Amino acid sequence: MNEKFFNANFPKSADGRVSHIGIKRGEIANRIITVGDLNRAKLFLKLLDSDTAIFQRQSHRGFLTITGKYKGVPISIVGIGMGLSMMDFFVREARAIIDGTMIIIRIGTSGAIGKSNPGDVIISEGSFAVTRNYDYPIFENKMIIQDYEIKTKEQPYNMSKVFYGDKEICNLIRKQLINSGIPNSQVIQGLNASCDSFYSSQGRHDENFEDYNKGLIESIRTKYPEEVESLEMETFMLYYLAKCSTDAPYRSQHKVSNELKKDGDQKIKTSNNTLMTKKGFNSRNSIRAAANKIEK
Amino acid sequence: MNEKFFNANFPKSADGRVSHIGIKRGEIANRIITVGDLNRAKLFLKLLDSDTAIFQRQSHRGFLTITGKYKGVPISIVGIGMGLSMMDFFVREARAIIDGTMIIIRIGTSGAIGKSNPGDVIISEGSFAVTRNYDYPIFENKMIIQDYEIKTKEQPYNMSKVFYGDKEICNLIRKQLINSGIPNSQVIQGLNASCDSFYSSQGRHDENFEDYNKGLIESIRTKYPEEVESLEMETFMLYYLAKCSTDAPYRSQHKVSNELKKDGDQKIKTSNNTLMTKKGFNSRNSIRAAANKIEK
Repeated sequence: MNEKFFNANFPKSADGRVSHIGIKRGEIANRIITVGDLNRAKLFLKLLDSDTAIFQRQSHRGFLTITGKYKGVPISIVGIGMGLSMMDFFVREARAIIDGTMIIIRIGTSGAIGKSNPGDVIISEGSFAVTRNYDYPIFENKMIIQDYEIKTKEQPYNMSKVFYGDKEICNLIRKQLINSGIPNSQVIQGLNASCDSFYSSQGRHDENFEDYNKGLIESIRTKYPEEVESLEMETFMLYYLAKCSTDAPYRSQHKVSNELKKDGDQKIKTSNNTLMTKKGFNSRNSIRAAANKIEK
Repeated sequence: MNEKFFNANFPKSADGRVSHIGIKRGEIANRIITVGDLNRAKLFLKLLDSDTAIFQRQSHRGFLTITGKYKGVPISIVGIGMGLSMMDFFVREARAIIDGTMIIIRIGTSGAIGKSNPGDVIISEGSFAVTRNYDYPIFENKMIIQDYEIKTKEQPYNMSKVFYGDKEICNLIRKQLINSGIPNSQVIQGLNASCDSFYSSQGRHDENFEDYNKGLIESIRTKYPEEVESLEMETFMLYYLAKCSTDAPYRSQHKVSNELKKDGDQKIKTSNNTLMTKKGFNSRNSIRAAANKIEK
């Protein structure tokens, strides 16, 4: 906060730090694992090579970046907080200071409405956004609400189309999970819904607020009859921004760089190990991966 | 992350901590100042009464809660990170563990597109959301994009209707700012736009992503011809949730509790002092306030 930033369009400090994640070129690897929970980031830290220097920096905006090596390969672990906006901050600011291919895997716990059981691992192949319709006539009478829905064809929540993660990375993750001994039946692949609230737009009921979300889970299942497995708050933005990358020839979600093929196994093993972490809260583990390529 | 949580609908730990902001009843006051920058939270901390115990707790999800007294009146300062979702987490979880009237004032720096100059103070009377339309046909040719816009009447960005902060608190803040010596011309009141990205939906240009945002600022001015002063990322959710409060008789944004009238001066003086903090980056200071009342 006391630093002076330059360029209101894309603020950086005098020494090249992007303003919210608080790091500069060279302090972050192009293979990245993101988490929302800072304690989970520290669990990953323990898996890094102990004979190599480890960089750590927490920004004033809540981002924690840890960079080191895993079996000799540079990797970063970044705690980014929660919500589509925090993922947006992270992906854009990281992209501005990383050269070449950028691979991001998000690991976390999530709610689930599909066939998984607590303790299973969900790989999110694709994700759509569930966002609240702020123009919905809250606290109006039934007639006004009905009239609004008929005239505008709008509901209390919006659901976007689906964007996909990198298919080959998802498949590699699956393969490694099975190889590590997790039963096939406990590795679930399916769609994810990224919701703009942990409460209203994930169908939770909060008596203190009028959320019009009683039929929400059913609406999600109706719009996407293929299995929607997980509900969380960040994956959609990761896949969406991978798709928005201006490096047009590489936007396809089915391409994976040679670089990844070469050392994908190590990287994915890292995810795999940390996936074994269990949580008391009734949640499923979930993994999402996106890659985009920019040739500079 | 290692704690066991109960009740998937509204998770709390065994000792009553709400799961993301990580605090329990009694650890937070019902008068709250929120900030996005953790260093700013620590600046406020210095203004608290030094002869009273100060509670501090940082959650694993990036929330920092500081509770103490200001001239004998309990007050909390909470660093909540950035984005509409982080504000949603905070307001709902705080509401679940605070009894009675809850008054929240958000203080931060912001971009500005109105008549203010850097260093001025903006009081956001009302706020609307600017959110990206994820269904917009990115990377399609001109014909497809035109066709989409004609058929759906949709643009790359959505703008919600306006929700208002508490009018009397806004007026009290203005009065106190002027009393403290800030020239009348430097205290600006107007509308705020809360955007779901610091970059795309605030009109910044990022060559790494296709954002379709070249005409965005002009579209904002067209939809809201009254002065839109500030662009930031949280205010809208604060005002919106105040409006969504199920305590119907008190939802009006023009009511202020007697409690506030009695000691509003002290509270607002706190904001005022910290507002004097200047930042090198080309931003305006901005304040937003919301109150909702729940009689339990």
